[in-house]
Amino acid sequence: MPTYKAPLDDMKFVLNDVIDYSRLTSLPGYADFDVDTAMSVLEGAAQFCEEVLHPINQNGDAEGCHIDHGAVTTPSGFKSAYQKYVESGWPALSADEAFGGQGFPQTLRFAVEEMICASNLSFGMFPGLSHGAYHALLMHGADDLKATWLPKLVTGEWSGTMCLTEAQCGTDLGLLTTKAEPRSDGSHAITGNKIFISAGDHDLTDNIVHLVLARLPDAPSGIKGISLFIVPKFLLHADGTPGAANGVRCVSIEHKMGIKASPTCVLAFEHSVGWLVGETNKGMRGMFTMMNAARLAVGMQGLGLSEVAYQNAVSYAKDRLQGRSLTGVKNPSGPADPLIVHPDVRRSLMTIRAFNEGARALSLWVGTHIDMHEKHPDPAVRKDADDFVALMTPIVKAYFTDMGFECTNMALQIYGGHGYIREYGMEQFVRDARIAQIYEGANGIQALDLVGRKLPAEGGRLLRFFFHPLSERLQRTVQDPQLKEFAEPLAKSFARLQQATQFIVMKAMSNPDEAGAASTDYLRMFGLVALGDMWLRMAEVSLAKLPTATGDRSFHDAKIKTARFFMTKMLPEVHGLFARIMAGAGPVMALEAEGF
Amino acid sequence: MPTYKAPLDDMKFVLNDVIDYSRLTSLPGYADFDVDTAMSVLEGAAQFCEEVLHPINQNGDAEGCHIDHGAVTTPSGFKSAYQKYVESGWPALSADEAFGGQGFPQTLRFAVEEMICASNLSFGMFPGLSHGAYHALLMHGADDLKATWLPKLVTGEWSGTMCLTEAQCGTDLGLLTTKAEPRSDGSHAITGNKIFISAGDHDLTDNIVHLVLARLPDAPSGIKGISLFIVPKFLLHADGTPGAANGVRCVSIEHKMGIKASPTCVLAFEHSVGWLVGETNKGMRGMFTMMNAARLAVGMQGLGLSEVAYQNAVSYAKDRLQGRSLTGVKNPSGPADPLIVHPDVRRSLMTIRAFNEGARALSLWVGTHIDMHEKHPDPAVRKDADDFVALMTPIVKAYFTDMGFECTNMALQIYGGHGYIREYGMEQFVRDARIAQIYEGANGIQALDLVGRKLPAEGGRLLRFFFHPLSERLQRTVQDPQLKEFAEPLAKSFARLQQATQFIVMKAMSNPDEAGAASTDYLRMFGLVALGDMWLRMAEVSLAKLPTATGDRSFHDAKIKTARFFMTKMLPEVHGLFARIMAGAGPVMALEAEGF
Repeated sequence: MPTYKAPLDDMKFVLNDVIDYSRLTSLPGYADFDVDTAMSVLEGAAQFCEEVLHPINQNGDAEGCHIDHGAVTTPSGFKSAYQKYVESGWPALSADEAFGGQGFPQTLRFAVEEMICASNLSFGMFPGLSHGAYHALLMHGADDLKATWLPKLVTGEWSGTMCLTEAQCGTDLGLLTTKAEPRSDGSHAITGNKIFISAGDHDLTDNIVHLVLARLPDAPSGIKGISLFIVPKFLLHADGTPGAANGVRCVSIEHKMGIKASPTCVLAFEHSVGWLVGETNKGMRGMFTMMNAARLAVGMQGLGLSEVAYQNAVSYAKDRLQGRSLTGVKNPSGPADPLIVHPDVRRSLMTIRAFNEGARALSLWVGTHIDMHEKHPDPAVRKDADDFVALMTPIVKAYFTDMGFECTNMALQIYGGHGYIREYGMEQFVRDARIAQIYEGANGIQALDLVGRKLPAEGGRLLRFFFHPLSERLQRTVQDPQLKEFAEPLAKSFARLQQATQFIVMKAMSNPDEAGAASTDYLRMFGLVALGDMWLRMAEVSLAKLPTATGDRSFHDAKIKTARFFMTKMLPEVHGLFARIMAGAGPVMALEAEGF
Repeated sequence: MPTYKAPLDDMKFVLNDVIDYSRLTSLPGYADFDVDTAMSVLEGAAQFCEEVLHPINQNGDAEGCHIDHGAVTTPSGFKSAYQKYVESGWPALSADEAFGGQGFPQTLRFAVEEMICASNLSFGMFPGLSHGAYHALLMHGADDLKATWLPKLVTGEWSGTMCLTEAQCGTDLGLLTTKAEPRSDGSHAITGNKIFISAGDHDLTDNIVHLVLARLPDAPSGIKGISLFIVPKFLLHADGTPGAANGVRCVSIEHKMGIKASPTCVLAFEHSVGWLVGETNKGMRGMFTMMNAARLAVGMQGLGLSEVAYQNAVSYAKDRLQGRSLTGVKNPSGPADPLIVHPDVRRSLMTIRAFNEGARALSLWVGTHIDMHEKHPDPAVRKDADDFVALMTPIVKAYFTDMGFECTNMALQIYGGHGYIREYGMEQFVRDARIAQIYEGANGIQALDLVGRKLPAEGGRLLRFFFHPLSERLQRTVQDPQLKEFAEPLAKSFARLQQATQFIVMKAMSNPDEAGAASTDYLRMFGLVALGDMWLRMAEVSLAKLPTATGDRSFHDAKIKTARFFMTKMLPEVHGLFARIMAGAGPVMALEAEGF
């Protein structure tokens, strides 16, 4: 049975020494949230995840969810865990104080999300979706809607969903057909079928707040004719408590590869009462508000699963005796050496570790920009921060989840045959990780978003927020006798990224397929360079601290060694990606569709 | 529900035009097995796989195997499919005629194995293991053992297993403790527990022939004290029919990530009667005979699953309408364009296709060397052929299965959310493919076998059988105006492979961890170059045939385009791998075990 221990030391290091968290405390409303306060929150979350969520992760997978006469039940333990989650106030952590939230920085939510996903991804889906619904309502809802629905979403007493997909449309939402017909009281009657609705029905809360994309009778076709509605499972009594059923029926739940404790529902809306959120035919805006937050959260799922898989692979590699070291016996009193002596095992562990720590730093770095976007008094700083988040969102979503899948698989492999057996829990991490590459915009769509929207936006303005600071850091560090071993390979890879960027932008002007064909390789390259940036920063910090370090000496020593591994063993993937990109779209598109 | 159509046209092309199959017909005993005969065999196998095995693949996964009072039952349909398999004579295809086999070339068995694995991997485990047992007995068993056990293994009336692993030892068989005590009649009493025994118990045959590694009372410790025994589930009556139970008990079956219709058993042997196969304390020889055949067969599992996943992803990509082409509407009469217009979807499909066709050619090329090893009158040719097979075995096993997993995942991804749902069948291919990277020697072990045993063997003699012909082909083709676009990138990658080889051999002399740290990257690089060799050959054939091609014009056109894709879009991975290898073992081994 796997175990989980939240990486609090590493989180503290990132907050204190890498991402300059303290600058958040000067933002309006954040004065009280210094690093010590932040760490005490994270310690509480860690305890909850380790002691409440992780112990029900495996039985959640084994039992799955069940549906009986349209009512979905979650696996044993989920309901009481959710009640504790609500009682402890976690749903409100970073929610707006105006609606009962605790107003903590979003950066901390990222760290908490990593822990929740690591300990129990299926459980994390419930509050994750609720947060998306909360956020869309907060940004786009009218005041009365907010007053009615937000407080209970903030406490977690009610949960939320995002109802976008229909059988004929996933990526291409322009094809959706769910109807919204005006009712005399200003509300709308929603009718249609939605599929793949995570947490679409369950037994954890006494109401569910669905955010539904639908089409008004006179709406233009395509995505410009889509509006967003709030449609509760139960209508409310005058006192605000749930009353009559609202015609939302869970038709079935899917049998999935993983996240089996998260019910994925087919929902039928039949003249369900809904209220417009935002303007008519501008539903995609609200959808993107939900999606962008959700995309970053999904990235954290990749990281979380990679972290828990790493921890278990490490302990297996230290405990399991098998074979002898190539360089001589290391465990003479035992019948064999532990797996961790073998270079190929260590290569896998170092790879996962280097990804996890780099990704953790990057995610919290992005998190601080969300806080700056929301709180900074200067609109120019707010806009810059938002642009940086917009640039990094597809990278965090796709690169983190691709690596989440790769890393959980590497961790499984270390277990050998036992990795393939359910009771060891490793194969669940792999199955759970697989969905993150798909939902909230499949990773190919993220790559297209990066090359098709983010690169060309405002004449390449978004790129600057990543390229300029990195250029400066490299110019400074590449001369430094201690840092140049890290800065030089990164500078080389960064140059490749810049060349690839130019190549794609130029080529795509005459043939958009060039951008499409390069997109996935380009996003991967960007992710590698972005992690390289984090590793350069971390190496710099740890090199500076090592000479005087006492209790945390081994921590900084490991950081430096892991940085070296990243630069020499992971970053070179850039070279193959670069060569592929530069080969252009021709070889990809040459074969006619009939030839396949 | 997925479908499968065996790639007979491509197999015919490989046999006829790429691997010079016809030269096998000059080998003793193979005169009757020309290409036409071969193709009629493959057509029969195709029909069986498509019509009998594939339709029960999905329910096999859903039902799984069950155990009741030590007796294992297979999912519905498996028993009757197995009976048809036996009645049709497939188990005997390439078995020795002296024991009732049909004596077909081994090369054809490779092609048949691809089809069986593609259509139903779990089913394929039963005859696969039987073949391993058959082969070990054939090579190492005494005449009376062969006469008693081989004929029914050849007909498939009885099945076989390989009982190696114990709870404390998987890779490191030296740690095994199962005992073999001499009995007065020359047989032995076998006592011990084995785990992970595929097809260890089931309801398909009325006897099971276990090949069991065990230790004699006076045996030296470690792998030099292991002997191989044949231990049937039921002892035989005087007339050769199964009689009394032989103390072999199935204790439990594993709950696995995939191949759920293949029972993975814990077997307890309690004073079970066994007979020594081969010499005492030389059991590892027999084990390697089984393992080497099994490793190549496992490689075919990767290819087979990649092929069936490809076929289904192609039809989904052609049928599913979602989004519009970046270069303008391609399906104006429909609400959207089919997925296959999107460059990123095409990139995935081309990658899978290029792997499948390259791997198919390579596997059959290796197959012809097995036939030459077994049948060629000249011992020098036999030895050369065997050495080539020994070199390629870890590459076929590990590279094919790593790619099998990657390709099934790429195919799943094309389905979007539907790929994650059971009924579409794609996630089963992924789960089934995952085990092939682990069993019969985890892929890290294959990589160590390549760098630690195969590279240094006989002063690098084995490498010559791959390096020399490729050098010659490149020298010839790199000058050719039509071929140089294929030969040049391959020559560059081949040079990298040669450099990496020298680097590893040199470095490993002073520090064996250098070989271990480079091993996985090196094997991958070797696999890429080996597939490149196949693609160069195929491009040469198709370029020569295209000008006069009529009915198969589009076939050769597609070959050339796929060759181009491989050389420009897949082979460049070599560059990143090369840089990683050249960074040496230092960064991999720097962090102390306690630092993890």
